[in-house]
Amino acid sequence: MAVSKIEPHIYVIFGATGNLARRKLFPALYHLSAKGELKGKNKILGVARGDLDDHKYRILARDMLKSAGLPIDNKIYSPWCESCLNYHSIDKGDSKDYEKLAARIESIEQENDMPGNRVFNIAVPPSVFPKAVMGLGEAGLNKSPGWTRLVVEKPFGSDLSSAKELNNLVHKYFEESQIYRIDHFLGKETVQNLLVFRFANAFFEHLWSREHIESVEITVAENLGIEGRSNYYEQTGALRDMVQNHLTQILTMVAMEIPIAFEAEALRNEKVKVLRQIAPILTKNIIYGQYIKGKIDGKEVVGYREESGISTNSKIETFVALKLEVNNWRWKGVPFYLRTGKRMPKRLTQIIIKFHCAPISIFKPFESTCALEPNALIITLQPYEGFDMKFQVKSIGQPLTLTTQQLRFRYSETFGALPDAYETLLLDVIKGDQTLFVRYDEVEASWQLYNPVLGKKIPLKNYSAGTWGPTEADHFFSLEEKR
Amino acid sequence: MAVSKIEPHIYVIFGATGNLARRKLFPALYHLSAKGELKGKNKILGVARGDLDDHKYRILARDMLKSAGLPIDNKIYSPWCESCLNYHSIDKGDSKDYEKLAARIESIEQENDMPGNRVFNIAVPPSVFPKAVMGLGEAGLNKSPGWTRLVVEKPFGSDLSSAKELNNLVHKYFEESQIYRIDHFLGKETVQNLLVFRFANAFFEHLWSREHIESVEITVAENLGIEGRSNYYEQTGALRDMVQNHLTQILTMVAMEIPIAFEAEALRNEKVKVLRQIAPILTKNIIYGQYIKGKIDGKEVVGYREESGISTNSKIETFVALKLEVNNWRWKGVPFYLRTGKRMPKRLTQIIIKFHCAPISIFKPFESTCALEPNALIITLQPYEGFDMKFQVKSIGQPLTLTTQQLRFRYSETFGALPDAYETLLLDVIKGDQTLFVRYDEVEASWQLYNPVLGKKIPLKNYSAGTWGPTEADHFFSLEEKR
Repeated sequence: MAVSKIEPHIYVIFGATGNLARRKLFPALYHLSAKGELKGKNKILGVARGDLDDHKYRILARDMLKSAGLPIDNKIYSPWCESCLNYHSIDKGDSKDYEKLAARIESIEQENDMPGNRVFNIAVPPSVFPKAVMGLGEAGLNKSPGWTRLVVEKPFGSDLSSAKELNNLVHKYFEESQIYRIDHFLGKETVQNLLVFRFANAFFEHLWSREHIESVEITVAENLGIEGRSNYYEQTGALRDMVQNHLTQILTMVAMEIPIAFEAEALRNEKVKVLRQIAPILTKNIIYGQYIKGKIDGKEVVGYREESGISTNSKIETFVALKLEVNNWRWKGVPFYLRTGKRMPKRLTQIIIKFHCAPISIFKPFESTCALEPNALIITLQPYEGFDMKFQVKSIGQPLTLTTQQLRFRYSETFGALPDAYETLLLDVIKGDQTLFVRYDEVEASWQLYNPVLGKKIPLKNYSAGTWGPTEADHFFSLEEKR
Repeated sequence: MAVSKIEPHIYVIFGATGNLARRKLFPALYHLSAKGELKGKNKILGVARGDLDDHKYRILARDMLKSAGLPIDNKIYSPWCESCLNYHSIDKGDSKDYEKLAARIESIEQENDMPGNRVFNIAVPPSVFPKAVMGLGEAGLNKSPGWTRLVVEKPFGSDLSSAKELNNLVHKYFEESQIYRIDHFLGKETVQNLLVFRFANAFFEHLWSREHIESVEITVAENLGIEGRSNYYEQTGALRDMVQNHLTQILTMVAMEIPIAFEAEALRNEKVKVLRQIAPILTKNIIYGQYIKGKIDGKEVVGYREESGISTNSKIETFVALKLEVNNWRWKGVPFYLRTGKRMPKRLTQIIIKFHCAPISIFKPFESTCALEPNALIITLQPYEGFDMKFQVKSIGQPLTLTTQQLRFRYSETFGALPDAYETLLLDVIKGDQTLFVRYDEVEASWQLYNPVLGKKIPLKNYSAGTWGPTEADHFFSLEEKR
């Protein structure tokens, strides 16, 4: 990892009054400032269509922080707000508007004697995204006297060809080294720690292969439904919304080879390599599900087709389970199971590494080889973040009987609360560290993998809200952690 | 492990008024009865020189239990005492006395319609031991209509030739299958669990060799001094008192190959094998220490030579640290460090398995190969019994830094209090399971190893009470657990 420092810069948020700005970008930038991480070296420029001015935007910003649940310390907030926060209306977003934006940026930089370092964080709907990139590029905002960085939020296309199109468009104006594609899963402490866990612990790395591992299970379960985002979800579904990005990112971090160094290109080279080694996914190894009404935490919830804005005969999957194989020397023959769904019993992101059974039990020498429960490593990414190593222990007393217990580590017991992923990621953008961002060829390799699946008709099974998905998927998942 | 059951039997304790009977045998047998483990099928016959009768002995027995700190439930104690407890004075212990003892045993068996199963637990000083065994043998008490078992307490000799002599004497009258040599460490749940840990967990067994392990450290630290046993200790010292038996037993369980089954002969075969594979110990790899005055828990304590009954120029070691090597395919080149001492900072029995460093740190690629703290498995046998797996975790926040954390398992959190080792062992005697007892050839192989050391002049270093021994031993121990 390069040692990076904070340089004076303007952080430009496109979509500055939108949902993402409100929930994530603003709180993260404010919290970084409040903690002193930015050393007072940043200006924020909110950009949106609305007819606001600096003063009105500062009032709105306070509301945004409040609605994100952030405690606001007035002694910090007021000076921060006054010195740091500006607004610029992009109006209709034609080329003249971008020229005005450029002028505004330059004037802020001049006023504050800034060297021209700029972040453009594009937090607008996918339909508006190309126009924004073009607008920046055509107005010359892809270059500056200092550095210029472009932050791109998901979705990165909706299939292989649209992803390529997007990449081409962005590359028309920006170098790949300027582009920061956010998969917010990569900003989670627990996901970053996957790499530390694997590459700083000789103990585990020795066991990390087909020789010792029976299967890998990755679950990203949500208990929420679609939360009003019917339009988006009807065009997306769980495969595009979760599997192609988040689950596949986790998979690459579990399966990748050891990079030559802990830095962006080395790491992303390995991620792309492993993505390209995944065998084509067989239709029979994919299970789609859609939730029908059920109960979560004792509360009745409606089925997907009853959600407001959803077609009553929608075929969109709210659950995906699939099995895939990584065809390389390390992993050949080890099934990787991915599972994600909405309206599952609880929120849980978890990786289960199941080890082979002991070849023989000297305690029951003539019973089946799996007379002993196999060792398993359970990495919980959220909530109750931590590691659990399942192992066999002698029960107290006689006769000798075995019981499965766990070696445990919980982040909260050591570190307290974990920072939000966006704080980590935006700070990395500002420092210029691309390690935790998705490179264009990763996006394309991932779509390459799922593109054939998109074209196939996969039967859709019902599951009741509050269950772990269609029973047809159960045999994929040998262990189910319920904590 | 054979499934064994409790059969009616007489449990004869030689030395029935002595220290071991008082502290360990009596409390264990009573507690087993009170828990219903013996199903009311046993009679206890206390044998000693003192002129007591059943009644007086029952009164004494209550005192013994009380002084051992055992809660006595009168509803259980009184009927147990009345129905189960008898006393026989052996007087001078000549052959006539043993014939009388035989008659007494037979009469108890007849009265109670018992099949003649007998345990003789010889809890007398080493000097009296041969006479007792001969007495039993000559009186024909080595055979019975049922089974006969002989329980032998340490020390099993004081060097190789005396150990062989003892074994020969015992074998003159008893088959090895009748003999139960107690090393009470083997009765500890945590020590038994070493075998489960190793042979029921594929995960760990794969790492259990020179390929992955850097060193093994075994520590048995006592904060106590010699507690009035000056006579015994002046003839013994730490090597004979602790290393030759307890530490070496733990070593064999860490280092042994996988037995063909979890049963006595298979297990003990492997223990003997590994003992015979230990290379002769070099004098330069042994450090002897003797404590001088110091502080433990803030309290001043005297030095060994100031203890009452100890010679003021005693050369007896109260501390031993040594390094040895197991010359086989699994362990060649891996140092095993053993350490024991009196008047150390605290009571602690612990095994530390230190793994090799990662071959490279991608986090600091050009630093020394041990830029990362190596993984280590810490098995704490007492107190705070449990397992700790040291591993590297990412610290929260940026820049990326690593911190050593632990995957933890504590028996107490799952099982509550652990039973006393003697309960486990005496129940095994009664069931006829020799797995946790020391076979004659183990004793001899262990003495074979240490016999050459006994003949050598090893410099004796001072250490202050309340420290971890002479500083000369520090370099043997890379990790020091202080919890």
